[in-house]
Amino acid sequence: MTISVTPPTTTGKTAAGSIAARNADLLVQAISSKGSPVCVGLDPALEQLPEATRRDDPVEAIEMFSRGVIDAVAPHVPAIKFQSACYERHGWRGMRVLESCMHHARNLGLVVVLDAKRGDIGISSNHYAAAAAGAGAHFVTVNGYLGLSGVEPFLNAGLGVFVLVRTSNPDSAAVQSEKLASGATVAEHMAGLVHTLGVAHIGAAGLSAVGAVVGATQSREAGALRALMPDQIFLIPGYGAQGGTADDIRVMRRASQPPEKSGVLVTASRSVIYAKATEGQHWLEAVGTAAKNLAHEIRDVVG
Amino acid sequence: MTISVTPPTTTGKTAAGSIAARNADLLVQAISSKGSPVCVGLDPALEQLPEATRRDDPVEAIEMFSRGVIDAVAPHVPAIKFQSACYERHGWRGMRVLESCMHHARNLGLVVVLDAKRGDIGISSNHYAAAAAGAGAHFVTVNGYLGLSGVEPFLNAGLGVFVLVRTSNPDSAAVQSEKLASGATVAEHMAGLVHTLGVAHIGAAGLSAVGAVVGATQSREAGALRALMPDQIFLIPGYGAQGGTADDIRVMRRASQPPEKSGVLVTASRSVIYAKATEGQHWLEAVGTAAKNLAHEIRDVVG
Repeated sequence: MTISVTPPTTTGKTAAGSIAARNADLLVQAISSKGSPVCVGLDPALEQLPEATRRDDPVEAIEMFSRGVIDAVAPHVPAIKFQSACYERHGWRGMRVLESCMHHARNLGLVVVLDAKRGDIGISSNHYAAAAAGAGAHFVTVNGYLGLSGVEPFLNAGLGVFVLVRTSNPDSAAVQSEKLASGATVAEHMAGLVHTLGVAHIGAAGLSAVGAVVGATQSREAGALRALMPDQIFLIPGYGAQGGTADDIRVMRRASQPPEKSGVLVTASRSVIYAKATEGQHWLEAVGTAAKNLAHEIRDVVG
Repeated sequence: MTISVTPPTTTGKTAAGSIAARNADLLVQAISSKGSPVCVGLDPALEQLPEATRRDDPVEAIEMFSRGVIDAVAPHVPAIKFQSACYERHGWRGMRVLESCMHHARNLGLVVVLDAKRGDIGISSNHYAAAAAGAGAHFVTVNGYLGLSGVEPFLNAGLGVFVLVRTSNPDSAAVQSEKLASGATVAEHMAGLVHTLGVAHIGAAGLSAVGAVVGATQSREAGALRALMPDQIFLIPGYGAQGGTADDIRVMRRASQPPEKSGVLVTASRSVIYAKATEGQHWLEAVGTAAKNLAHEIRDVVG
């Protein structure tokens, strides 16, 4: 008779026992079913909405636009990312729309990423995690500057996370690329923490529910980050509008894996949600076509 | 004839032209009027509310409790800090309560700090800033891991900020105390960025609207941080319940300054908002007394 002993992990859970890990598998499955590791970013800003969704009440306009985009992209992409800030700026009524749209996306079978970049001491992260779970998120973007105790509550609430490692904004190097005495950059140090935390949350497909945000504009550093985070899904903003290219994405893949296990989730926002309709075309048809084209494009890049 | 030349600053604004700087002066004035650089942290958690505020509807309970605490502490302290997470966890109805309570506190003359630890790329931080300003905040806590471009939108929206530099949680050293090749820690590097950004937002009283979060439990590193941030107000959580002491606070003061210009704002939460009433005493009387005692205690520490 053999007695199986489960080694203790950072959160006291084995990967097999991690509820959060299911989100990684769910994402892998959704990517496999849609054929492309792509995510549409929903960041509605009033001044950019198409004519057809303009309303006297800005919150009504945001809701109409959001629901339209969700319906239009759902057949083509596995995941959708909600930029919390765009809804929060409209106060509690905006939050009400965000919650109802997240549930709507989830009901359509989309994997829902709440891009909220939360992070606080553990007791407060508990509350943020409860909020995100209640709103219907599968994954939340989180900031690890306070340490992993602020990240773990999200996992304990059954959510996956994407921890900010190397962001796409122009001045992100000011903190993230600083060299430590060890020779690693701050981002690489964060990557090490992310990988360690992620071990206990690896799903059946071999990917962890603890992912990382790595901007498409940071491909020069991405090879090193991939080596440090072999099990992580990289949520990759900055493709297209912000300047990230196909070559940038290729550097970030896990080697020799099919698209659903390549460990990338490429997000594009403005190029899809504000796709210009041709004459006589409904704006949502343009959005749907843009989502489909993006999915094909990224499938070809990753495949 | 002398021609006065204003040196350019990071945001292209002189301190005199910074609307955000007024928040620093407002806080100095409020501290002077109440006599103590102290801030009550309002982090209501359902399971800790006093009997008298229990309701079937949790959001109603949170609102009743919050309004009661605001009214009870307003005569004794200059500032109040709302923990956004505690309201967000109750969804959009919680956010509605948060907004109405923040406005209520502001109307009572309190300086309002929104403890939301936001931080994103500039375009999204714009939205977060609009949300915080709309909700009635004077200051917002922000996370600078993405760089200062994610912090500046709050200043441009006329808000003051407290940037996370050295937090009070037990594992905060995992990132913040890492040594850089330069010899500085990550927190000290962040402090340098905070100070540089703050120069353009110094008010008439000599303090900047760009402040820093430095936990009371981090006094061993606080002397170095004070040297790097001479113009900053330190928002100091962790006093009391989390183990920070009077000696810890003293290390963080600006030298030879009266309390209102000492550059500290000490926050305490649980010890005030959950103050136990003695037999026959109304719970709010206990809260008011605890706030008054805390204000006296901190006045004696700093004065």
